[in-house]
Formats: sequence, C-alpha cells, structure tokens
Amino acid sequence: MADTDPLVLFMPSGKRGRFAVGTPVLEAARQLGVYVESVCGGRATCGRCQISVQEGQFAKHQITSSLDHLSPPGAREARYDEVRGLPAGRRLSCSATILGDLVIDVPQDTVVNAQLVRKSADDRIIQRNPAIRMCYVEVDEPDMEKPLGDLDRLKASLARDWHFDDLAVDTHLLSQVQSILRKGGWKVTAAIHQDPSADRAHLIALYPGLKNEAYGIACDIGSTTIAMHLSSLLSGRTIASAGTPNPQIRFGEDLMSRVSYVMMNPDGRAAMTNAVREALNGLIDRVSADGGIARSDILDSVFVGNPIMHHLFLGIDPTELGGAPFALAVSRAVQARASDLGLAMNDGTRSYLLPCIAGHVGADAAAATLAEGPHRQDDMMLLVDIGTNAEIVLGHSGRIVAASSPTGPAFEGAEISGGQRAAPGAIERVRIDPVTLEPRFRVIGIEPWSDEPGFAEAAETIKVTGICGSGIIEVVAELYLAGILSEDGVIDGTLAGRSPRIVANGRTFSYLLSDGEPRITVTQNDIRAIQLAKAALYAGVKLLMDRQGVATVDRIGLAGAFGTFIDPTYAMVLGLIPDCDLGRVKAVGNAAGTGARMCLLNRDHRREIEALVGRIEKIETALEPSFQQHFVDAMALPNKVDAFPHLSKVVRLPERKAESGEGEACGRRRRRSRD
Amino acid sequence: MADTDPLVLFMPSGKRGRFAVGTPVLEAARQLGVYVESVCGGRATCGRCQISVQEGQFAKHQITSSLDHLSPPGAREARYDEVRGLPAGRRLSCSATILGDLVIDVPQDTVVNAQLVRKSADDRIIQRNPAIRMCYVEVDEPDMEKPLGDLDRLKASLARDWHFDDLAVDTHLLSQVQSILRKGGWKVTAAIHQDPSADRAHLIALYPGLKNEAYGIACDIGSTTIAMHLSSLLSGRTIASAGTPNPQIRFGEDLMSRVSYVMMNPDGRAAMTNAVREALNGLIDRVSADGGIARSDILDSVFVGNPIMHHLFLGIDPTELGGAPFALAVSRAVQARASDLGLAMNDGTRSYLLPCIAGHVGADAAAATLAEGPHRQDDMMLLVDIGTNAEIVLGHSGRIVAASSPTGPAFEGAEISGGQRAAPGAIERVRIDPVTLEPRFRVIGIEPWSDEPGFAEAAETIKVTGICGSGIIEVVAELYLAGILSEDGVIDGTLAGRSPRIVANGRTFSYLLSDGEPRITVTQNDIRAIQLAKAALYAGVKLLMDRQGVATVDRIGLAGAFGTFIDPTYAMVLGLIPDCDLGRVKAVGNAAGTGARMCLLNRDHRREIEALVGRIEKIETALEPSFQQHFVDAMALPNKVDAFPHLSKVVRLPERKAESGEGEACGRRRRRSRD
Repeated sequence: MADTDPLVLFMPSGKRGRFAVGTPVLEAARQLGVYVESVCGGRATCGRCQISVQEGQFAKHQITSSLDHLSPPGAREARYDEVRGLPAGRRLSCSATILGDLVIDVPQDTVVNAQLVRKSADDRIIQRNPAIRMCYVEVDEPDMEKPLGDLDRLKASLARDWHFDDLAVDTHLLSQVQSILRKGGWKVTAAIHQDPSADRAHLIALYPGLKNEAYGIACDIGSTTIAMHLSSLLSGRTIASAGTPNPQIRFGEDLMSRVSYVMMNPDGRAAMTNAVREALNGLIDRVSADGGIARSDILDSVFVGNPIMHHLFLGIDPTELGGAPFALAVSRAVQARASDLGLAMNDGTRSYLLPCIAGHVGADAAAATLAEGPHRQDDMMLLVDIGTNAEIVLGHSGRIVAASSPTGPAFEGAEISGGQRAAPGAIERVRIDPVTLEPRFRVIGIEPWSDEPGFAEAAETIKVTGICGSGIIEVVAELYLAGILSEDGVIDGTLAGRSPRIVANGRTFSYLLSDGEPRITVTQNDIRAIQLAKAALYAGVKLLMDRQGVATVDRIGLAGAFGTFIDPTYAMVLGLIPDCDLGRVKAVGNAAGTGARMCLLNRDHRREIEALVGRIEKIETALEPSFQQHFVDAMALPNKVDAFPHLSKVVRLPERKAESGEGEACGRRRRRSRD
Repeated sequence: MADTDPLVLFMPSGKRGRFAVGTPVLEAARQLGVYVESVCGGRATCGRCQISVQEGQFAKHQITSSLDHLSPPGAREARYDEVRGLPAGRRLSCSATILGDLVIDVPQDTVVNAQLVRKSADDRIIQRNPAIRMCYVEVDEPDMEKPLGDLDRLKASLARDWHFDDLAVDTHLLSQVQSILRKGGWKVTAAIHQDPSADRAHLIALYPGLKNEAYGIACDIGSTTIAMHLSSLLSGRTIASAGTPNPQIRFGEDLMSRVSYVMMNPDGRAAMTNAVREALNGLIDRVSADGGIARSDILDSVFVGNPIMHHLFLGIDPTELGGAPFALAVSRAVQARASDLGLAMNDGTRSYLLPCIAGHVGADAAAATLAEGPHRQDDMMLLVDIGTNAEIVLGHSGRIVAASSPTGPAFEGAEISGGQRAAPGAIERVRIDPVTLEPRFRVIGIEPWSDEPGFAEAAETIKVTGICGSGIIEVVAELYLAGILSEDGVIDGTLAGRSPRIVANGRTFSYLLSDGEPRITVTQNDIRAIQLAKAALYAGVKLLMDRQGVATVDRIGLAGAFGTFIDPTYAMVLGLIPDCDLGRVKAVGNAAGTGARMCLLNRDHRREIEALVGRIEKIETALEPSFQQHFVDAMALPNKVDAFPHLSKVVRLPERKAESGEGEACGRRRRRSRD
C-alpha cells in the first residue's frame, strides 16, 4: 500500500496498517490478522462484524479519526439496521469502507440475538478466535454437465468464499447434506472445526440458510464440584452457568479413595466414568435450558480436571496414578468428538481437554496457569491450588516450574478434631486477644462476630458445629501471634494458669475455642496436622524457588475455593506461603474454569498452553533430596530459617526463640524415617 | 553415494541406486521408495522383509549380481530362520547388508503365517503400499522425572522409529493404551492409518507384542450381487472370497424400482441401507471364518458400487439420482470409520469408497477404469459395463471420457418374450444354418449342443426354460447372418414358406427357436427391444468417440458378468460394440472388484483414481444433440453408417441393402417424438 493510503488502527489489538480507499474494514482487519466475526461472509445479514469508530486526534499514532472517514451506510447496511437494528455508533465492517485515517474499536461482546445473560463467569474479556467458525455460503445448483456431488459443490463454495481448501467431512453429515442444501435453497451455514491447526479443518454441522449462533461449554471437573459455563462462540458472552456436586463422591470422598474403589471393584472405573458423564449431561441440560438454546447448538466443549478426574472422564483406569511412578496414561491435550466421550450434544460437537502437567499436576493446574499467565509476565509468580494435593506453579516469562505437594486433607477440615467442611455452623474467622487470651470468631451463616450483639440468638438457630479450613488457619496463626503457641507449634501449658482456655489433654494441652455444645477445641494433634500440611506445601514451594534460584516471589495467586476464603495474612503468618507484598497476594477464584473458557473462545490459547506445558519443568517432590530439610524447617511458625520481612511490616510476629528440643526431635525423627 | 559404491537394482520396480557397503538392503529399498514390508522395524522378528538375489551378469544394467554380495546371515537372521524358517534363497532385508552389486527381487506375496488360501480373486499381482501399516515399537517406561503420559511416550517411539511425527489417536484407544503397553511389557505393535496423504496419520489399533498380521476387505456392491474379498494387508494375498445376492432385491429388482421404493415408503431408504449393511456384515463373518481370522483383525475396507448402491450404503437418499439433473449427494472419494457405516470389525477399522464419475457412472465404473487402466496406455480403449444402465469409458493416457446409456433390461432377459436370467435351463449359445434356417443351441447346465447325442436325455432333467442375455445376442446376430433378419431388424416373412421356423404372429413374424415345452420364440418385438438396447449403448459409445475425435477404437474391455458370457464376435455382429480387432476385445471379469482390491492394497491407487476421476470428461447422453442420429443409425444391424472391416475379415456379413422403409420410419418417428 502506498504511504498516502489511509492509516487504520484497530483497538484493542493495536494492529495497524495502510489500506487503499474503498477497502472494506472487515477486509482490512483480516489482512492484519485482527479477529472480527462474520458469519454471512460480507453480505450484511449476520450483523456479527460490528465495529465502531473512535473519533478524535490520536497524536501518538498520528491519526485524526473521524466517523466520516468511513463510507456512509449503503443499501444493504441500511436494510440490516432497519430490520435488526444496529446499536448507536455501530457499523457493519463488511459494508463500511475506508475513506480516511481511522481508529476502529472491535467490540468483544457483540450480541446480536436478544440473549438472556444470567451470569457472567467473570469480568474478564477474552479475545476470541474460536475453533468453530460459522460460514454462510451459497452453493451452485446441480448441473448435468458438471456432475459434482452436492457435498463436493458445497466444499467448493467453502473453498472459494472461506478458503477452506482441504475440508474433511464428518461421516454423519454425508446423508444430510443433500436435504439441508435443498431446504436452504442452496444457501446454508457450515460449522467448521479447525483445531489443532496442524489437522485438516472438518465440516461438523450444516444448517439451512443463515445460522447466526453457535455455543460452547467450558467445564471444570473438580473432585468435589463440577462447574460448567455456556458461552456464545460468536459473541464470547457467557449465557449460563451451573454447578453440581461430583457424583463420584459416593464412591469415595477424596481422590485416593476413588482410586482405591477402582482397584477393589471390577466395575468401579466404568461406574465412575458413567457417573461423571451423567452429571455433565445433566449440567448440559441445565445450561441449555437456562440459556434458552438447544443442546444441538452446542458445537464445542472444553474440559479441565486433575489427573484422576481427567482419566476417569476419558474412561481411563486411574490406578497407575495411585502410586509411583504416577504414570499418566495420556498427558498431552486430547481432541475428540463429544459423542465418543458419552456426551450428547450435536453429532459433530468436539471436545478438547487441556494437557496434564504431571501425574499429580493436572489439566486444571494447566488451565489455572493459562488464566493467571505467569508466562506472560516478568514478575516471579507463585500459583497455588490447595486440595488434598496442592498443585504449585512458579515462574515468569522465562521459565516455569511446577510440582505437587501431598498436603493431605487437614486444610479441608479432616484429621482436625473439630474440623468440618465450609458450611453453615463452621467457624471461619478467629481472633485471639494476646492479653486475655480470649477468642472471638465468626461463623458461616451468622453475620455478627461471636462477641457482638445478636450472635447468641443467631447461634441458637445455626448451631456452631465445627471449624472449617480458613478458620483452622486463622486459629493456629492467632494462637501463635498471641504467644500461646511456640514457633515450634507447641501449646504453652504454663499459660493454663493464666487462662481457662488452655486445658490439659493428657501429656499435651488444648485451646478451648468455643465452649458451647459441641465444645470446639484445638488440640496439640490438630496443630501438628496443620503443621505437617503447611510444611509439605511450603517445602514444595521452596523446591520450586530453589529450582528458579530465587529467595522471594513477586506475586502469589491462590486458586480454588480454599484460596478464595483464606486470609492471605494468616496464611503467611502460618508459613503456608512464602513472604511477599501482601498487596500482591490475591485469590484468583476458579482460575481453572477461566482457563477452560479461554481455550473455548480462542484456539490460540490451546496452542499457548500446549506449548507452555511442554516447557514447564516438573519437579517430583518425593525425589528431591532437599525436600526433607525444607519440610523440617517449614514445620516451625512461620518458618525456622526463612524471614518474612513484608509480613513483619503488617503483623507483629513474636520474637524468635532459641531452637527448642521439640522441633529438633521432629526433624531428627523424620530424617531417621528416611534411612 | 560415491560412484564406486555397490549398485543395487530392485525388481520388479526397476528402481536402482548406489549404496555404501554395509547398508541394510531394507534401508536401501526405503531410500529408493521401494515398498518392502517390515512390521518389526528391522529386528529380524517379523520376517516380512524377505527378498531374494538374482544371480548372474545383467549386461543391460552393468551389474554382476551374486549371493555373496550380501552379508552372510547374522545371529538374528539365523535365529529367525531356525524358529520360523526362511524359504530357500530368501533373506531378511533388514539384516542382510550390501557388500557388492546386486539385483534384488522383492516378492509380492511373502506369506509368513501358514494361511489357508481358499481362492485367489484373480491372478493379478498388486504392488503393495497399504493405507494401514503395522509398526512394532519398544516404548520407554514411565519416569517420574519426565511425566509424559503412556500414550505420549508411545507416540514419541513411533516418531523416533517410524517417523510418524504428528500422529492423531482414535478416541477409543485412550482408555486401552495403558493396559496394552503393560500387557506387552512396553513392546507393542501399532496399526497406523495414513490416508489420504494430506490428512494426519492416525493410530487406529494397538496390540501387545509383535502383531504380525492385518487384513482388509474389498467389496463390490452390485445391485444384484455383493462380492467380497478378504486380503492380507501384509502379504497382499487374497485369503477368502464370498458373494451373496443383494437383499435389496426384495424392495425392487432393478435400480429404478428401488429408487421408487424409497420415494413411496417413508422408511424405505433406511430399510435398504440396513439391508445392504446386514448383508455386508454377513459376508464379513463368512470371509473371516473362511480365512480363520478374527473380524477385529480386519483394519481396512474398500467399497465400490454404482451411484445408487453407493448412496444407499452411505445412508443417502437416492431419489435425486432418479431424475434430471441426476445430482449425486457425494461424488468424491469418501473416507470414514467402518463403525460409522454400521460395519462391525475393529473399532478403528477404516472404510474407503472410490469416487463416482457421474450420476449414472459410479464408483464401480471408476474401479473398473482403475483396474483396466485406459489412462496407463496409449491405445484408445473402450471399457463397457452393461447393466440396466451401461457405463462406458473411452480413452487413453491423454484423455478419458465417460457416459452412461439407458440400455434398459433387455440384455438381462427382461422385456424379451422367452427371456430369463442366466441360470440352468437358459439357452446361452445359438447357431442357425443359413441354408436350412434350422437352429442348434446350447443350454446352461447341459453339456451337449441341442443337435448332439445326449441332449434330449439331459433336457428331460434340466428343462429348457428360456433364453438368457448372451443367447439373445447370439440368436439375433445369427438370424441376421442367416438372412432371416434384414439389416433393419425385420424378420423376413417371405421365408415362412421355406421354413416352418418362421411363423406369422399377427402382422409380424417370429422365429421358433425351441419347439419343446415351453415353446421359445423370438418375436419381432423381442428383436426391437434388443435393437433399442444395443442402439442406446452404441450411440453412447459413438458420442464418446466423437468427443475423442476417433473413428475406431484399439481395444475393448467388456466388464461384469454379462461381459464374461457374451461372445465378442456376436456382440459386434449385432453392432453392440464398434468394430475392432477381435483379438483385442476381451472380457475383463469383475474389473470393479479388482479396482477395489487395488485401492485396498495400495493407497497410491486411491490417489490415482481420485485424480483420474477429476479429469474424466463426463458426457450426459441426454443433452447431446447428436445422440438421436447415432441412435437411429445404430438401430440397423450392425449399423446403418459405420463399417466393420475387422469383423468382416472373420464373419461374412450380409450385403448391405438399400435403406428400407421400416428403418426410416423408425428414425422419423423418433425425431418427431423430440419436437
């Protein structure tokens, strides 16, 4: 293009180029690789290619952009506006041509049909480039002189108008093409699946006339909860969301008990595969109904889960994941037809599973990594998803390492005397007065704190039944901050004289947190369980930091439900996570689900995570000689050797005492157990 | 390679090259693109890579080939010979290395397992390059340090040893890979499907250990008979063959009545699709049992059929093929999974259908063209397959044209007063004495001719019930040669006085062929029906000759059962086919079935026929203005305008008479009917 041609800048991508006067904006976008949706292929009928013009002088870009640098609406665009209505300021980029310099906005949420939007999965706007494209074509009618088949003429049209030159066709369409072409009067919309990029594009569905919608689902198969989002592939909008408990829970509460179930029962694997697939089919029903769409309009689907969920969903026996060498049957991304995975949507619907990172670090961790993007930043970011196994990822744009740590179920309230799941009646926040040693706490389902008016009344309805994960972390941290707990995690029995809360319990002491019915105490064993769990996690983090050669991290993301509810300050006091600017420690919510949605809406993200997982260095904590020492050091509160300078600015940590015999004994014991 | 390196010539391909001393023969073959089977990948365990040495001086190639120009058998080859036994003179090309100049024979029928060979489909040896390869690999065991999944390590091995770098995996294998790898002790054989070449190779089946066999079926779905061959993909040998009547016959005897059935019955299409698929499954059972193999060991399948059989097999409504513009739903080659077509073999079995040429010229005609290869020769070859529609192909290496002609069912014995299918009791050969006008004939199931001793006795058991297609052609031709029939096809009533065989029949006359019970006569109407049929066929041939700009053809191939049984001389006397050296008119048997087998055993033949069909020029006879005149001219015996010089050397044709009123009237009538 000549230097004097108009300069066009597309936002938000920032891509720019010069184009001859008269070039349609859609064509300019295509040439620059800016993704602008178009189903009708430039016929001004689908309305998907909307753009708007930013008017004004953009000195930085040396562009003076003006609405009248676009051609005025022609007959076809005016007709669309009249029939379907264009929002104010919006133009159809297939019809509007370039007359002068322009700054063009490509809205990422162009909604054409009046969709019910029940819930937004999160606020994140995901640049779209879905694996499914809807392509309207007009097909030549049959001609005795050129006896090409209906399907072959359709393929010729798709090659001519959409440049799909070597299209494969799903077998189920062979018998349908003929009648669909005639029903549409030789005008049809083809759904084309093009992913992975190395494979041929496939024709997966065909509709008479203009089909101006297509949907996809993104699904996080958690061991406790299965969550699903329904998104429009053409607007990117989340149309509906739903969740359901994982019905595999009836075979085993935690992952290892499910693996045991498979090992003990000949039909166990099939039963669990069926259970999760049935639950998924139920969720598909719900999101379809909520979104007011047909199941058959769902053409793509993305799934994430930890390795055991991933294997069971695919029908793979997870037994090998139950013991060393924790061999995954399939680690790389999986592309399949949904019907082959027992999911009934459209006959052509595709399914994509993100890759697993390692035998204990699954597709969910990969998705969370994709969503949080340590590889897209220079900060050294720690990403932690705490479950029975904590999945840990540490890195930046240069290098990423990952591991899992066997934290056990203590953070979920198991192995803790008063522990329970996060549910009404569970203590979730705790404060202890360092002078009186008296506690106050907050209970799920009860608004006031325990020392505030109205608590007692409320507690008569919602009984205080136990303490959940976030409460456990806070009570142990507060016991330490109040001086009741030594840095080695021993309850100081000498304080029993000062407070009735400190009570003897055989050879050790407990702390009475709630004296209602039931009495809720924190025992020395409870504290040991939490120490073991947090030490395992921290030791895993330290191994990754060692591998990265860093002593501190710049950011921390806490993923999953646990990460959402714990207070980062207390997590740090406990020494669950390393020292860091607390302003840069964030709960990142269901990052795995967000990563799944990213892969649903943009196939480039699939390539991104596939390439990334290929270069993530996996560390098997059990094989690392230094794990043991890190573990022993991390038994202390917050840590025997590591400093917490950022934390110290916010919280007054007790002064370090000389090394106590207890901690040392613990360390020696563990070392011996290894010999 | 240096000029002094040994020169190696491979036969029968004739490919040659120089290789360093010590190069394994298998490696040399690979480098030259000579297909030598190897399942074990050079471990001297599968025995598939056998070759032999032609000893002697080959002056033309300047090679002196000697057995001792191969390295002597090493320990591994000796071990194979000891355990499995090598035929005399055979060597394993993976183990034998090149020491000097060699002429190497690559046998095309290396049989390793002791296979029962019940029937050879035909004598043709098909160079092999099947779409399925069996690839033995040894897979790395799981390693905690490199947490790649089992499947991914398998893929890495297949990339390393067999250069499959971007292998896709059938979904049904995901859940099986883990246990198969362990069952085989990390040694497995992968079945890889690689076709069409543009697509990714797919892993379709996996076996523990060395799996040294794989099979395929080639199938011709005729409207009357379905024929199937079972072949070893590794040796190329046909292991078993079977045929069965097409059960669709119960819905309609001929093609058009089956189309009508679909049009009249809502479930007609599904019923006919199920019928043919059931019949195919039955044949698969039979050939598997005959061959002593498991259905699941059949990994590839190839199908041909006319357009209506092709569509019904694929589940496509054939109604559009019943009327202009005779639009095919699918014309190009189809690649699918056999299970998607209702055929139960292995879950990974693939199916390939050859392309159709036009709405009336099907995949069977394409297969016959591939088998007879007009495109591989410089002679102008005519290929004719006569059925209710005759499929006609004419061409040579430069250009090929094709058409169909609506011959109707007369050649099959329908519309003929004494007509019947070719079955015991049917007259199949006829001679008429030109002096006495007395006939003699031969009957299917009776060895002597009707005027020979023993005929009368035999005819008491096998009653003479009618006349079949080849008999009809002969009797009409003989009537003409005997002077009973004019060149316009009129029975000369004046001869009634000379012979009691010429009998009045209303306003016309008949010829009494057999005076037994039933009496079998040839009526004037019968002769008209044959004239109409042969004129349609000949007119179609003439259109193709016009398009090619030729007045004669060099060779004629008569395909199918009808082509096998008719006598080419009589077909030419009748003017069914154009004049040609009778020594170059040949029945080519089930050429369609042979073409299917070629595509089964060598995927290059698939590319060959796909490319060829793309460049075959299709002529729609109904649209050609000159068809009508060709048709009228061809009503005469053998033809009103064309000379038959080759035929005249063999047969004394009656002298041409002046144009008769009858023929002219017929011509005029036909011309009028077009106005």
